Amino acid sequence: MPERLSGVLDVSVDNVIFGFDENILKVLVIERKPFPDEKKGMSAIPGDLVYPKESLDGAAARVLKDLTSLEGLFLKQFHTFGDPNRVKDLKDQEWLTNFRINPERRVITIAYYSLIKMDEYQLLPSYFAEKADWVDVLEVPDLAFDHNEIVSKALEALRHGLEVDQIGFELLPEKFTLTQLQNLYEIILDKKFDKRNFRKNIKKMEHVIPLNEKQEGVLHKPAQLFKFEKDV
Amino acid sequence: MPERLSGVLDVSVDNVIFGFDENILKVLVIERKPFPDEKKGMSAIPGDLVYPKESLDGAAARVLKDLTSLEGLFLKQFHTFGDPNRVKDLKDQEWLTNFRINPERRVITIAYYSLIKMDEYQLLPSYFAEKADWVDVLEVPDLAFDHNEIVSKALEALRHGLEVDQIGFELLPEKFTLTQLQNLYEIILDKKFDKRNFRKNIKKMEHVIPLNEKQEGVLHKPAQLFKFEKDV
Repeated sequence: MPERLSGVLDVSVDNVIFGFDENILKVLVIERKPFPDEKKGMSAIPGDLVYPKESLDGAAARVLKDLTSLEGLFLKQFHTFGDPNRVKDLKDQEWLTNFRINPERRVITIAYYSLIKMDEYQLLPSYFAEKADWVDVLEVPDLAFDHNEIVSKALEALRHGLEVDQIGFELLPEKFTLTQLQNLYEIILDKKFDKRNFRKNIKKMEHVIPLNEKQEGVLHKPAQLFKFEKDV
Repeated sequence: MPERLSGVLDVSVDNVIFGFDENILKVLVIERKPFPDEKKGMSAIPGDLVYPKESLDGAAARVLKDLTSLEGLFLKQFHTFGDPNRVKDLKDQEWLTNFRINPERRVITIAYYSLIKMDEYQLLPSYFAEKADWVDVLEVPDLAFDHNEIVSKALEALRHGLEVDQIGFELLPEKFTLTQLQNLYEIILDKKFDKRNFRKNIKKMEHVIPLNEKQEGVLHKPAQLFKFEKDV
């Protein structure tokens, strides 16, 4: 029987934080402090090893706060990545050698994602993060380890969640127009929708409730307002 | 800074296998070989530690085959369970003391589920499984570790998958009646549906295609047949 994993691996958490504003969907990337012979630190998503007595959700929240100062986010666990060679690239080994006691050890990582309104949060990089910045999800740079794959898979989970789990509504004002809703869907799904078809489909959604109210203080013809009702 | 997890934890995989036939949804439970002072082995879902150089999906398939002889299933990773005390109950510690080198070690487990037609597979328990049996999902006995919680969460994932990911159709004949489809939904979701409402909702599902054919060789009035088309 092959040797068990006992004592020969580490477990980490990684966080994919999506930031939305009215025109764009971004993802949070940190630049790690460079090690002695390095000019510029590698980019990565905020992640780190789990402590011995810490829950996984607790680790995800702590690591995110340590590296970026973000806290109070709803972090959803979506997948665990465990390729035996996921930290074995030369570039990654160089960095790990400077920062970890056992850089050669296999690391299995539990990944989380969250979606927030970018302008409501401030990023303050600290610990091994030199910078923390939003980058366009369509232009994510080369990241450490398998972090590009983790971001792709998180984007799939986010899009899936938007369509079936009614997430995303907290990014809209309490009362919103169908144009605002369509815009949210278009940005996150990276698709254009026909206005009439979109409205026909929205009418089938029982949790989008038409209100007997219209927009106020707009120059164009005021549009009808809607609200979101959870778990209809 | 607290000590890292390095070298102080194990990683395992656990499999929740759902078995369907026309009348019931069951889940696969093994009875573990009793240790020396034990009368009857504890029940559990089939799981075990991951080997050092093995992928997570590979480990899930290997462990399932080792314990039950089942192979070739589509195993879907759905959640990772990492409560720091999930293997610390006295009953679990007694068992682990007899079977593991480091029974006190924290174990993080990556859980998978699958859904199969019960009558197409034969169970042959081996390795540390004394028995392998199907039990009604509504009457799952007390299981080892947090396995009852894992089964509950898998059932949620299965039901969610049935409604949004078009899983479940492979359990039906290639050409099926709406009564057969309703029956599948009722068994898995553990709900009764009103026949008219159910049919109205099915008509909205673009991947359920009506055929120009009816049942043959039945005593009652033959019903229309439908087929399933993936990714419409």
